[in-house]
Amino acid sequence: MRVSKYLLSTQKETPADAEVVSHQLMLRAGMVRRNASGLYSWLPTGLRVLRKVEAIVREEMNKAGAVEILMPMVQPADLWIETGRWEKFGPELLRFQDRHNRDFVLGPTHEEVITDIIRKEINSYKQLPLTLYQIQTKFRDEVRPRFGVMRSREFLMKDAYSFHLDQESMDVTYDAMFQAYNNIFERMGLSFRPVLADTGSIGGSMSHEFHVLADSGEDLIAYSTESDYAANIEKAEAPMPTDTRGAATQEMTLVDTPNAKTIAELVEQHDIAIEKTVKTLIVKGATEEAPLVAIVVRGDHDLNEVKAEKIEAVLAPFEFADEADIRKAIGTGPGSIGPVGLNIPVYIDHSVNVMSDFGAGANQDNKHYFGINWERDLPQAEAADLRNIIEGEPSPCGKGTIALLRGIEVGHIFQLGTNYSESMHANVLDQNGKSKTLLMGCYGVGVSRIVAAAIEQNHDDRGIIWPKAIAPFTVGILPMNMHKSHRVKDIAEKLYQDLNDAGIEVLFDDRKERPGVMFADMELVGLPHVVVIGDRNIDNGVFEYKNRRTGEKQEIPFDQLLDFLKSAE
Amino acid sequence: MRVSKYLLSTQKETPADAEVVSHQLMLRAGMVRRNASGLYSWLPTGLRVLRKVEAIVREEMNKAGAVEILMPMVQPADLWIETGRWEKFGPELLRFQDRHNRDFVLGPTHEEVITDIIRKEINSYKQLPLTLYQIQTKFRDEVRPRFGVMRSREFLMKDAYSFHLDQESMDVTYDAMFQAYNNIFERMGLSFRPVLADTGSIGGSMSHEFHVLADSGEDLIAYSTESDYAANIEKAEAPMPTDTRGAATQEMTLVDTPNAKTIAELVEQHDIAIEKTVKTLIVKGATEEAPLVAIVVRGDHDLNEVKAEKIEAVLAPFEFADEADIRKAIGTGPGSIGPVGLNIPVYIDHSVNVMSDFGAGANQDNKHYFGINWERDLPQAEAADLRNIIEGEPSPCGKGTIALLRGIEVGHIFQLGTNYSESMHANVLDQNGKSKTLLMGCYGVGVSRIVAAAIEQNHDDRGIIWPKAIAPFTVGILPMNMHKSHRVKDIAEKLYQDLNDAGIEVLFDDRKERPGVMFADMELVGLPHVVVIGDRNIDNGVFEYKNRRTGEKQEIPFDQLLDFLKSAE
Repeated sequence: MRVSKYLLSTQKETPADAEVVSHQLMLRAGMVRRNASGLYSWLPTGLRVLRKVEAIVREEMNKAGAVEILMPMVQPADLWIETGRWEKFGPELLRFQDRHNRDFVLGPTHEEVITDIIRKEINSYKQLPLTLYQIQTKFRDEVRPRFGVMRSREFLMKDAYSFHLDQESMDVTYDAMFQAYNNIFERMGLSFRPVLADTGSIGGSMSHEFHVLADSGEDLIAYSTESDYAANIEKAEAPMPTDTRGAATQEMTLVDTPNAKTIAELVEQHDIAIEKTVKTLIVKGATEEAPLVAIVVRGDHDLNEVKAEKIEAVLAPFEFADEADIRKAIGTGPGSIGPVGLNIPVYIDHSVNVMSDFGAGANQDNKHYFGINWERDLPQAEAADLRNIIEGEPSPCGKGTIALLRGIEVGHIFQLGTNYSESMHANVLDQNGKSKTLLMGCYGVGVSRIVAAAIEQNHDDRGIIWPKAIAPFTVGILPMNMHKSHRVKDIAEKLYQDLNDAGIEVLFDDRKERPGVMFADMELVGLPHVVVIGDRNIDNGVFEYKNRRTGEKQEIPFDQLLDFLKSAE
Repeated sequence: MRVSKYLLSTQKETPADAEVVSHQLMLRAGMVRRNASGLYSWLPTGLRVLRKVEAIVREEMNKAGAVEILMPMVQPADLWIETGRWEKFGPELLRFQDRHNRDFVLGPTHEEVITDIIRKEINSYKQLPLTLYQIQTKFRDEVRPRFGVMRSREFLMKDAYSFHLDQESMDVTYDAMFQAYNNIFERMGLSFRPVLADTGSIGGSMSHEFHVLADSGEDLIAYSTESDYAANIEKAEAPMPTDTRGAATQEMTLVDTPNAKTIAELVEQHDIAIEKTVKTLIVKGATEEAPLVAIVVRGDHDLNEVKAEKIEAVLAPFEFADEADIRKAIGTGPGSIGPVGLNIPVYIDHSVNVMSDFGAGANQDNKHYFGINWERDLPQAEAADLRNIIEGEPSPCGKGTIALLRGIEVGHIFQLGTNYSESMHANVLDQNGKSKTLLMGCYGVGVSRIVAAAIEQNHDDRGIIWPKAIAPFTVGILPMNMHKSHRVKDIAEKLYQDLNDAGIEVLFDDRKERPGVMFADMELVGLPHVVVIGDRNIDNGVFEYKNRRTGEKQEIPFDQLLDFLKSAE
């Protein structure tokens, strides 16, 4: 591709509204443009990467025996009413009416549509197992779209759905998909990690996420230093306390703590260790009788919202209570709340359960109780795993200790069980002629998100550093002053032709631009290999080669370049 | 692909709700399934064809120098307000609001979005010309979706847009696109015709449609028997009458015609030649002062609505008046209307202008006037080309006579001029530093519609007959009683492996089905080549080969099959 016939559209300035580096670089490298909040056009350079990601996903899906289909973006509401998600799904589900006032949604996912197809097309166990997938545009009306295509409203996704007569077959396909996902990210040249995941609102029994590792990742991954164990911190089980609750040694006393709004301030200002304090968080309850619920974790621990959401009394999806409601019910605000004398349901983390002589808010403004003891000062509360695991704690797998990594979720696989097939009556006849409800799996890859995640992981201060497999072009040709030097022009044109003939994807910067501009653009766009052609090199019969990732430069004789590029990573 | 691991989903019965043969066969061959009115899922066999069509379109666009991008399906209303189409576009434009009550549309086309991108990215003549394209899902809220994917609401389209400084550059790109379109349909193995077209509501100065020829086509193509001239009948100029108006020889008389509601009945029941009659059609007017307009064509001619719409006094888009409004204004209904004494604007076709002593409705129920003459009996009306050209008339190109063909529109290219760039202020600096409004072209291909059109053109009573280039698979393997005969199984499996290794796409029917069922499915799905393997053939060391199009059968020795298939069309 000649730059003169292309839409390169690079820009020097970092756009003010782009918060994360991938969004900044995708704008600067001319990969995407924003059409409206959460809506992007993919310019040529971006689309080339997107299509490579898509092609790798497609190939690996096909290899794993999945069969490609294409379902519509616009879906009839009836199906969503059938599974109950028309009501349950929040405002992220974009609902609208057509010209005849019939209800539709813009599909954020396709469980309903695929189950509807399958219940009509599949009648017998002989047609099973079957895995269908599509690579298709989805829409989620995010309340606050952000980070460019990382969390956009319209996005490209690969979603696969598998159908089974029994759990054994489900497990075989799940494993095959797990392997296919490993292959996908491996082939893309990304550093990634499959992790145990919570099944969340989609439901089901077994689930893994695939994360591209990057310091900027929104997710925390807890992994064992000595085994394959890795889980989203949302899911990773915190270890049970090994010690038992100590006997009470202090009286419970009311302490004035006027300047202690946080645990950090409390322990700094008063003679109490952080491990002897608790945080009491008020969240929305699931019932009208108990619209507020208290969750208590140790002062040095973090609440795990996903674990908390599993408490029946807690509203799903998890939401903190509004401050006004808290004040009305408890008489004080966050900062002074504690479990003593609390008139709402209280749940405590296992580690809180073994505490004695501890401090907590007194449910009066600017006051805490110190020396609290269970049963003596307040009734025993129900304990559960409600906190995040911490780096250095023993791994739930029993081997090694936990270390943490940041990741960007780019894939998620689930065993759904009969969640959808039951409500939609997707049954088949088994070998004995008996009707059985289908088991389902579903398997998603965020195709457009991978592009952003790859950049978060692969960039430097000059721009993107593409892994070869998903680079928009493999090689850049930079002729120096081609419009003045016939020799440079001839050799550059010949090289362009030769590389094209060899099936290598080339971006040939044939603009009348200053070398500095051309170099900067090439580094920004991040092609793996750059070949510079200047009069000085020609005299020596060599090209000047530069590797984008290593920065290493070398001179390569004219006749050796093609072989070099073919074998270069 | 093994049928046992595929979703073949053929069906014997012709679905009752499918009116056209392509829709029937696409349902029966398991290519698509309806999710809701005008919304379809592409099952594996359909999607394979769709992807082949898409790939050919993409390759030819790239060859022609167009650069691929991808714009969103959801578009902000602002841009449509800017060009005025937010108001002008009918209810086919699906408008909706997001969770923040902001207005959006589901894109039926992308002139607004692309022009918005270009005005931001392109500032200088140096970046021109540029042609961008996308292959993307579109939505048109058709009032009556029909014929399956032929006129669905959600569909796949290739839309390209070109940008130019001057008309010369516009012409060069237009010609290149014209050629690319020829290549596309040629490569698909379809019989097609490029025809001059009306520019319609998109506007602009020059336009061609590409039609796949099929008896079931909705469009009529008028072409010259002796030149390259071909035009959509909407566009084809009818010849000017060569004779002049004859002198009046009859008195105008009022005739009772109680049983003559149509021209056919009139000429059958009364002594008047059809060429001496006129039809008076009442259509909606463009202004409040003249809400009804009369258009008069000769009794044996057909009104051309597209030509009529070009009269300033006629409402666009063209619409016939409601019968109630006609009765109220004229005092009679269709069947008795005529130009004599009519109190609304009257426009006549050129051929009506040269008539004398003619008959027409008398604007009284069940009465006609005979012997009408212009100027004597009614004022001279404005004449224009308002009728369809007729088979056998001289071609507008001056060579040969007109013949008619039926076609299905699958492509449409336009020169848009400054229609969009002006209202959206898409300007660049020219060589002299002066700001110039961009010239635009746009170029559409109905990707999903091509699949249906190809079937309309290529089928018989047993099913589809795919041209090789867009067949879902090239070869079908039909083993006879494989589950009983080890020999058949071994040879079938080996052939399957060999063909896969040779890069030939194969559908291997490994089901435990009766040969009759397998044959019928294979003919229905329409693969170009079918190889039958039975015990009898094995004894002779041959495969039985059947060509789907010709029906021709032949025996081919084992070791010659691969070469045969590679060279077979």
